Amino acid sequence: MRTRPLKVALLGCGVVGSEVARIMTTHADDLTARIGAPVELAGVAVRRPSKVREGIDPALITTDATALLKRGDIDVAIEVIGGIEPARTLITTAFENGISVVSANKALLAQDGAALHAAAETHGLDLYYEAAVAGAIPLVRPMRESLAGDKINRVMGIVNGTTNFILDKMDSTGAGYQEALDEATALGYAEADPTADVEGYDAAAKAAILAGIAFHTRVRLDDVYREGMTEVSAADFASAKRMGCTIKLLAILERAADGQSVTARVHPAMIPLSHPLASVREAYNAVFVEAEAAGRLMFYGPGAGGAPTASAVLGDLVAVCRNKLAQATGPGESAYTQLPVSPMGDVVTRYHISLDVADKPGVLAQVATTFAEHGVSIDTVRQQGKDGEASLVVVTHRAPDAALSGTVEALRKLDTVRGVASIMRVEGE
Amino acid sequence: MRTRPLKVALLGCGVVGSEVARIMTTHADDLTARIGAPVELAGVAVRRPSKVREGIDPALITTDATALLKRGDIDVAIEVIGGIEPARTLITTAFENGISVVSANKALLAQDGAALHAAAETHGLDLYYEAAVAGAIPLVRPMRESLAGDKINRVMGIVNGTTNFILDKMDSTGAGYQEALDEATALGYAEADPTADVEGYDAAAKAAILAGIAFHTRVRLDDVYREGMTEVSAADFASAKRMGCTIKLLAILERAADGQSVTARVHPAMIPLSHPLASVREAYNAVFVEAEAAGRLMFYGPGAGGAPTASAVLGDLVAVCRNKLAQATGPGESAYTQLPVSPMGDVVTRYHISLDVADKPGVLAQVATTFAEHGVSIDTVRQQGKDGEASLVVVTHRAPDAALSGTVEALRKLDTVRGVASIMRVEGE
Repeated sequence: MRTRPLKVALLGCGVVGSEVARIMTTHADDLTARIGAPVELAGVAVRRPSKVREGIDPALITTDATALLKRGDIDVAIEVIGGIEPARTLITTAFENGISVVSANKALLAQDGAALHAAAETHGLDLYYEAAVAGAIPLVRPMRESLAGDKINRVMGIVNGTTNFILDKMDSTGAGYQEALDEATALGYAEADPTADVEGYDAAAKAAILAGIAFHTRVRLDDVYREGMTEVSAADFASAKRMGCTIKLLAILERAADGQSVTARVHPAMIPLSHPLASVREAYNAVFVEAEAAGRLMFYGPGAGGAPTASAVLGDLVAVCRNKLAQATGPGESAYTQLPVSPMGDVVTRYHISLDVADKPGVLAQVATTFAEHGVSIDTVRQQGKDGEASLVVVTHRAPDAALSGTVEALRKLDTVRGVASIMRVEGE
Repeated sequence: MRTRPLKVALLGCGVVGSEVARIMTTHADDLTARIGAPVELAGVAVRRPSKVREGIDPALITTDATALLKRGDIDVAIEVIGGIEPARTLITTAFENGISVVSANKALLAQDGAALHAAAETHGLDLYYEAAVAGAIPLVRPMRESLAGDKINRVMGIVNGTTNFILDKMDSTGAGYQEALDEATALGYAEADPTADVEGYDAAAKAAILAGIAFHTRVRLDDVYREGMTEVSAADFASAKRMGCTIKLLAILERAADGQSVTARVHPAMIPLSHPLASVREAYNAVFVEAEAAGRLMFYGPGAGGAPTASAVLGDLVAVCRNKLAQATGPGESAYTQLPVSPMGDVVTRYHISLDVADKPGVLAQVATTFAEHGVSIDTVRQQGKDGEASLVVVTHRAPDAALSGTVEALRKLDTVRGVASIMRVEGE
């Protein structure tokens, strides 16, 4: 075994970074045995050097991350700063200085993954990022490596713990969105500004990363259709229950039936209670992967949090250190299929639509005609009337999303339709 | 990209081998892109050369596996023969001839894993075996690599599809063991001789392999406590239901509380319906992993079958070929902790015991005294009497298995106890 330690620069020392530092210290012997050489925390770049950081030698703290990367003895950099800058520049600086990188930065990888992978490859270095998607759940490695001999056709997952916590609360207590969000905030599951979570930006970044891995093609953040879950109401949950469903914010990545294109989307959807994703509670994440030979796989676990994310970071650290000792690199970006990403209108799915309609004869016929004119076939209709007002709940068969939204637009124009109370896609059947 | 192909010898061409050959042919371009070089099926060693094998060039078929491995141009051997011999000798021959190995052979790895890993290391070669445990489910790689920076404390899984199919049938239809086994056999889920599955031998082999990986120590097949599920009755399922439980055949691997030893066992057990493993239906497998930092993870998917197992084999093939091109090897055996494996008596668990007792005063007191004398604390007792006969269902608190079995032995000797109708461990709470 090599006795000269591999030197690690930790960039960022927040919730995740401090856990990484802690585990590197408390489990140093295990890491040494598993890597085949000691690994040493050689510097910690932070913004606020005055903050007390328990268990970290103050001599390691610096505010000059660039100088840390350039000082010449660093083997691996762990980037747990998050956001685009300065993370992007620092990762690039690391590669330019012969330093492999482990990153937990989903936003950056979703936006600039291709350029960062190219930089890593140019310099013959590793860029690992298991922690960027679904926290502790091994997902990037299984998809990139375990399923490297298979063909992934579909990925459907709950990849945001905050929104799953909120939706689970709404489902189990009947609470409305705001009430459930307030509880999530009070318990620390939601940030003060929850936009990135509840509007689906966080999930969309993970969707872009996973789609790229699943289909061996480049999927940019802009390619991902995104709808948040702030409009999901207690009434939607009541409708879902009547259908034997619940509502989840899903990231769904699909290869088209002809194999010539892919789609990537994030939106709330009804899924049957019998689907394994329906029983994913609280802030847990779970991802369902359908591959040609392997069949249906599911990966489940904590999708966020300091220690779980640190677990994923350290698994990558061990791999990158092992690669370094073997003078090899792990798998880089695989984007050889160059499949186009189709727009949301091409996605084939089902709709659950609640309409407020006039309670008079002929309304159902008019509504049904509108669906037929747009080539959308109806699965079930439920009518419910009182006091001259009525509601109509329509569940469609599978149809292109464009046809479905065209139908809804036409329905809004009918004078017998007073309003469209809710529209939700139905998945997982 | 390198154009000279990597050459693969396929040892065995049964259900799994023929799927491996098929996918290598139909997905050759994808494999080439992912490996960085073409990969070619260079020979297929079989026992019955006369059998028609669709899609395989007859010129590749040979009955002389040894000669195939010794001919000098093979880079990787895929061993899907199963059983101890000739698989063991052939894998050894492969290593002696500079050939890395992908194996799906759980029995061999459980029995001789240490020697085979040592041989691979001596020759600087890879031994990969994702397919040996839980079929298509990525489990060996996530545990060996993704969790390499974490500390796994517990693994609990359903790792045998046949027995899960039988138990699921018994649970959902109220059928007895024999009836459910007959259905499994008729549907092809159970073999004509189901011993290896129903007596837990297959699960025990997987438990030994997983325990070794989880705890970085050597766990031999003989170290695994094993109890089959042929005694599980419809009455046990009825009892389980009353407790809000179902019954699964579980492989359970635990690190002792003091961290100084481990246990490995396979037996049927009651688990609460709320536990994620309780909803694993039919022949699916699922493995729950508890790690210090990552928390609770679950991996779910098809645990057997030609195509799923081939998916795992081909994922390993891609990795081994990539290693070969990089002149590196993947992680080998990690057994540095050398933790002793404690006997079953040291396992701390709970018991659910059904007793047939005389329906007269003082019986409960006598039974309760027996538990107390063995240091086993009772959680709940349910008494039910008719016609001078009565039954007593006792659920204990957690206690060492030795104390629990000592209690049962003493209970059998009480003249008020007519018989012990069933004993089952309770897990997952």
